[in-house]
Amino acid sequence: MAKKYDEPVTQIHIKPKMTVGELVNAMGKAGAYNGGALFKAVEIYERMLRDPKATKFFGLAGAMVPAGMGGIVADLISKGHIDVLVSTGANLTHDIVEAIGCRHFHGTAFCNDVELRHDEINRIYDIYLPNEAFEKFEGFIQQIFSELEPESTISICDLLCHIGHRTKKGILHNAMKKSIPVFCPAIQDSMIGLQYWLFSQTNHVVIDSFADMPALMDKCFTAEKSGALLVGGGVPKNFILQSMLMTPNGFNYAIQLTGDRPDLGGLSGATLDEARSWGKITEEAEAITVYGDATITLPILVAAVMERMLHD
Amino acid sequence: MAKKYDEPVTQIHIKPKMTVGELVNAMGKAGAYNGGALFKAVEIYERMLRDPKATKFFGLAGAMVPAGMGGIVADLISKGHIDVLVSTGANLTHDIVEAIGCRHFHGTAFCNDVELRHDEINRIYDIYLPNEAFEKFEGFIQQIFSELEPESTISICDLLCHIGHRTKKGILHNAMKKSIPVFCPAIQDSMIGLQYWLFSQTNHVVIDSFADMPALMDKCFTAEKSGALLVGGGVPKNFILQSMLMTPNGFNYAIQLTGDRPDLGGLSGATLDEARSWGKITEEAEAITVYGDATITLPILVAAVMERMLHD
Amino acid sequence: MAKKYDEPVTQIHIKPKMTVGELVNAMGKAGAYNGGALFKAVEIYERMLRDPKATKFFGLAGAMVPAGMGGIVADLISKGHIDVLVSTGANLTHDIVEAIGCRHFHGTAFCNDVELRHDEINRIYDIYLPNEAFEKFEGFIQQIFSELEPESTISICDLLCHIGHRTKKGILHNAMKKSIPVFCPAIQDSMIGLQYWLFSQTNHVVIDSFADMPALMDKCFTAEKSGALLVGGGVPKNFILQSMLMTPNGFNYAIQLTGDRPDLGGLSGATLDEARSWGKITEEAEAITVYGDATITLPILVAAVMERMLHD
Amino acid sequence: MAKKYDEPVTQIHIKPKMTVGELVNAMGKAGAYNGGALFKAVEIYERMLRDPKATKFFGLAGAMVPAGMGGIVADLISKGHIDVLVSTGANLTHDIVEAIGCRHFHGTAFCNDVELRHDEINRIYDIYLPNEAFEKFEGFIQQIFSELEPESTISICDLLCHIGHRTKKGILHNAMKKSIPVFCPAIQDSMIGLQYWLFSQTNHVVIDSFADMPALMDKCFTAEKSGALLVGGGVPKNFILQSMLMTPNGFNYAIQLTGDRPDLGGLSGATLDEARSWGKITEEAEAITVYGDATITLPILVAAVMERMLHD
Repeated sequence: MAKKYDEPVTQIHIKPKMTVGELVNAMGKAGAYNGGALFKAVEIYERMLRDPKATKFFGLAGAMVPAGMGGIVADLISKGHIDVLVSTGANLTHDIVEAIGCRHFHGTAFCNDVELRHDEINRIYDIYLPNEAFEKFEGFIQQIFSELEPESTISICDLLCHIGHRTKKGILHNAMKKSIPVFCPAIQDSMIGLQYWLFSQTNHVVIDSFADMPALMDKCFTAEKSGALLVGGGVPKNFILQSMLMTPNGFNYAIQLTGDRPDLGGLSGATLDEARSWGKITEEAEAITVYGDATITLPILVAAVMERMLHD
Repeated sequence: MAKKYDEPVTQIHIKPKMTVGELVNAMGKAGAYNGGALFKAVEIYERMLRDPKATKFFGLAGAMVPAGMGGIVADLISKGHIDVLVSTGANLTHDIVEAIGCRHFHGTAFCNDVELRHDEINRIYDIYLPNEAFEKFEGFIQQIFSELEPESTISICDLLCHIGHRTKKGILHNAMKKSIPVFCPAIQDSMIGLQYWLFSQTNHVVIDSFADMPALMDKCFTAEKSGALLVGGGVPKNFILQSMLMTPNGFNYAIQLTGDRPDLGGLSGATLDEARSWGKITEEAEAITVYGDATITLPILVAAVMERMLHD
Repeated sequence: MAKKYDEPVTQIHIKPKMTVGELVNAMGKAGAYNGGALFKAVEIYERMLRDPKATKFFGLAGAMVPAGMGGIVADLISKGHIDVLVSTGANLTHDIVEAIGCRHFHGTAFCNDVELRHDEINRIYDIYLPNEAFEKFEGFIQQIFSELEPESTISICDLLCHIGHRTKKGILHNAMKKSIPVFCPAIQDSMIGLQYWLFSQTNHVVIDSFADMPALMDKCFTAEKSGALLVGGGVPKNFILQSMLMTPNGFNYAIQLTGDRPDLGGLSGATLDEARSWGKITEEAEAITVYGDATITLPILVAAVMERMLHD
Repeated sequence: MAKKYDEPVTQIHIKPKMTVGELVNAMGKAGAYNGGALFKAVEIYERMLRDPKATKFFGLAGAMVPAGMGGIVADLISKGHIDVLVSTGANLTHDIVEAIGCRHFHGTAFCNDVELRHDEINRIYDIYLPNEAFEKFEGFIQQIFSELEPESTISICDLLCHIGHRTKKGILHNAMKKSIPVFCPAIQDSMIGLQYWLFSQTNHVVIDSFADMPALMDKCFTAEKSGALLVGGGVPKNFILQSMLMTPNGFNYAIQLTGDRPDLGGLSGATLDEARSWGKITEEAEAITVYGDATITLPILVAAVMERMLHD
C-alpha cells in the first residue's frame, strides 16, 4: 500500500502576540478545511510573487472597496505585485469616491431601507454611503469625460488610466503611476457607466469594447509563466481565466477567495480543478480555493505573505 | 397590541399527481423559509406578468443554458413575457452552441479534470461540453462577424440580434423574432468575445460599449411600471437594477433566485430591501428573494405561474 | 477512449399543469446541478421504497415541523414508508404543539426581536410561535410525565411512544399507531427535555440513554438491506449513519437534503461519498445529496415519488 | 435627522509582521461584513472573559478536534476561560483519540472513498483517520467502562469526567483537572456511544440522560451574568441557549462562529437576534455572529483576545 496520507494534524495552541504569519503557519500544521486551505494559499501566493518569470493577475469582484479592502489592492499595485488588474465597475466607482475625499460609513444590515432612502443613504450590507458622495462623483467624472477628445474612440483601459491621472490616491491612481492596465469589461454596469451614458447624451466619444483586448492577449501569449489571485468571481474571474484559452499557455498559479459554492454550477463558485479541464490553468498548476468572506481571508493572506517577504 | 402575525402554518399533505401549481400553493400555506418565499415569488411574478403597464426585465446569470434552463427563457420570450433581457456572455455562447446543433452532456463533478483535458472535454460542474462544440462555434461565429460592414461601428445589442438572425432556435433567435433587445454589457468576457478578438486581429469593426444604452434608458424613463426577474446575480442583476437609478422610477416588482448570501456584501447576494435604499426598486415594490439553486426554483416558478395563467 | 459522458442535456420546456413528477422528469433530462440531483434523489427514493427487503430510516433535523413539513413525515409513517425515525427533540416538541391544537404562524424574519419578546412571540426565522403554546404544552406533557411509574427506568423511545398515545395526530401519534420506533438521542436538548428536568425536580424516573439502542442495533444487524432519507444533518444524520458501523452492513440507499456545505468539515454538510470511506454506506450504495432548502426539496421529492407509486 | 451612521470605513494597509490583534483592529476600522463582525466578536469576547461576574459557556460542534482546534479549547479550559463546556460526542471521541496517542492526518477531499475504505482510512473532508485509531480507542474506552460500578447509575458528565481522569491531555483531561463539567446530551450519537452499547451487551450500568441537568440549571439560575461562545450549531448551541429558558435570566454576551445561514430556518444558522425573541439572550445582550469556517475564525478570535489580555 502506497502512503495514503501526509503529515499529522498538529493541534493549535495560541501564543499571545503571534504575528499573522505565525498564526497561519499554525493553521497549516492543523491543516484542515479552509484554515488549511488558507495556509496553502499563502504558500502559493508567496511562490507566485517571488517568481520573476510570472505575470501577476488580480481579479477584484464583490463590494471590496466599500469594505476597506481597496487599500490592500492599491498597496499591492504600488509594491509591484500586480501586473494586470481586472475589476468590476463598482469597485472602481467606490475607489474614485474615496479618492475624491468622500467616505463610506459603518452602518448596520438590520435597518429600515425605506428610512435610509428618505435619509439619502445607500446601503451595501452594513456599509452606508450618503448620496452626496455620488453628487460629488458626478461633478468629478463629468469634468474628466469633458476633456476627452470629441469624436474620438477610446479603450476602457485608457479611460480608466485617464481617471487615474486625476485621482490622488487609490487603485486607479496607483495603477496609473505603475503603468498597470486596469480592465473593466462591463464598464457600463457601474456608476461610471451611468455617468458616461449621461455624458454621451450630448457628446460623442466611442468607448471601444475590444480596443484593449489585444494588449491583454499579448501579455497572455508572451508570459513565460503566470499567476492569478481572484477575489470573488463574476466577470473578473472569468475574464482573467478565459484570457489563456486562446494561447498555448495556462495559469501556473491560481488562488481564489470566494464565498460561493461549486454545486450551483456558476463560474463564480467553480473549483479551480474545473478550470484545468478547460486549460485555463495548467495541468500542473498550483491552485487553491479558500471559501469564506474575503474581508477576512484577503487581509490574512496578504499580511502573511508580506511578512514572509519582509527580508528579501 | 396590534396583530403580530398572519395566517397559521398548514402542514403539507402530498397528494399524488399534484400539479406544480398545487404543490406551490401548499408550500404557501406552510409558508416558511424558502418554500414560503417561492410561493410569494409565484404570486408576485403572476401579478407582474398580468400587469399590462409593466415593462418586464429578465436577468440571466449563472451557467443556466448548459443546465437546460435556456429553453425556459426562450419560451418566456416567445410568449411575450420578457421585454428586456440582460445576460452574461457565457449563457449566450452556450445558447449559440445548442442552436447550431451541438449538445452539452450529463457528466459528473467527481472526476479527474486532467483526464477530461486530455479527452478534450470542458466541465461545468457536472455538465460536459466537448471541445468540438467550440470548433463548430468558431466557424459559425466567424462567418457572422465576417458579414459585418468593414470600418463600421455597432452596438452589442445589434451584434447579438445579428447572431439571432442566423441561429434557428434558442434565446437569441427568439429575441430577434420578437424584437426583444438582449443586453450583454461584458460581451468581451465570453467565447463570443474571444472570437471577436480573433476577428479583430484582421478586421476593423468597432463594438461601441455604450451605443445600446440610450435605448435601455429610454425604456426605463418611459416605463409606466416595471418588473424584474433576476436569475443569479453578477452583471445582469446589477445592470438591470441600476438602470432605474438615473430615472425618477424604480422597479415595482422584483424577484431574485439566487444561491448567494447577503452577509458577504456582494451585490449578487444582496437583499432586494437593500435595493430600496438606493431607489432601484420602489419603496412599495413587491419583492422577494428565493435562496437556492435556480435549476430547481426557476422551473417551479415558471411552471406554477404558467399554470395560473392557463385560462387567460 | 472510453465513453466519457452520458446523455445530452435536454432544454426544459414548461407545459402548464405539469404534475410535479413530470417537472422532475424534465429536470432529470436537463440533468444539471441540484435540479439533476433532485431527479436522481427521486429515482433512488422510489427504488428504496419499492424494495421489500430494505429497512427504511428517516432522519429529521432542522426546524421542519414549524415549517409545515411534519405533515409529510406523518403521512410517510402512515403509509409504511418509514421503519425507523430519528429526530431532533425540537421537531418532536413542535409536533406535540401542533397535535394539542396550537398553531405556528406566518411572520417575517425582518422584525424587531425585542418587540416580539414583549409580545411573547418566539421566532423561528419567519415563523412565529406564541408563548401560550408552550404553556399549553407544559400542562400536557407534565400530565403525561406524572403517569410514569415512580422509581422506574424508561427508554427515550418508550417515553416518546407514551406521548404518541396521548396525541391525536402528527408524527409521534402515527409512529405509535404503526409501532415505529422514534429515536431522539438528545431528548434533553428540547422543550421536552426542559419539562422533564422540571418534572424530575420532584419525581424520580430515570431516562436511560442507552436502553433503546439494542433494539436499533438489532434492526441494523438483521436488515437484509437498508436505506436512509436524511433531512438536514445534526444528530439524526450521524446517529442513523453510525448505526451501521458496528455491523458488517452499510446503507444501500442514501439521500440527503441539506443546506450545508462540505468544505467546512462538519458531518451535517459531509458528502455521502465521505460516508463510504467509513463503511456507513456500502461501496455500491446508490446515494445522492441535494443541496438546498428542504422546505422546497422535500415536498417535491415526496410528491414525485408518490406520483410514481400511485398505481402500485 | 438623527445621526444615521457611525465611523467612516478606513481602508486597510497591511504592515508586515502585524500581530493578529493588530490585523483584527484594522478589520474593525474597515468595519464591513464578516471582517467587521470578527472585530466585534473580539470586543465582546474580551469583555465577556474580563467580566468576573459572568459564567462562561462554550459550545463545540462541527468536526473541530480533527481539525486541530481542540488545542485551543483545551487551553481555554486550562486558563479558566470556560466554566461550562457542551460538546458533540464526535469532538470528545476525537479528543480521546488524540489523547491516547493516535493522530489525524492531512489528506484530500478529492479522492476515491472506496479506495480509502479498502485502505481502512476514515475521511473527514480533507482529514484522514486510520481505523487502527478506533481499535486503540476501543481498548482504552472499554477498559474505562469496565471500571464502572456494576448496576450503578451514572450521569453523562460523570462518565466524561471519569474518562478525563485517564487521558493525559486534551479537552476532557483539562476539564477534569479544572473541575469543569462537560455536557454531551447526545452521547449515544458518537463512537463513545457505540462502544457503550457494546459494553452494555454484557454489563449493566445505566447512563441517566437527565442526571446532570440539575447542576446545569443551578448554574443558570445562580449566574449573576453569563456569556456563550458557540462554535458551530447543533446540539451544543441549542442546549446552551435553551438552558436559560427556564430561568428569569438570559445570556448577556453571545458570539457564534458558524458556516450556516439563517434563511433555512434551522437553529444552527439562526441569528442571535432570533434568540432575543425567545429570551435565550437578554434584550440588551452584546451579541454577534461571524459567518465563515471556524478553522479560520476561531484561531483569530482567540489569538486577538489573548493578545489583548496579555498584560492583565
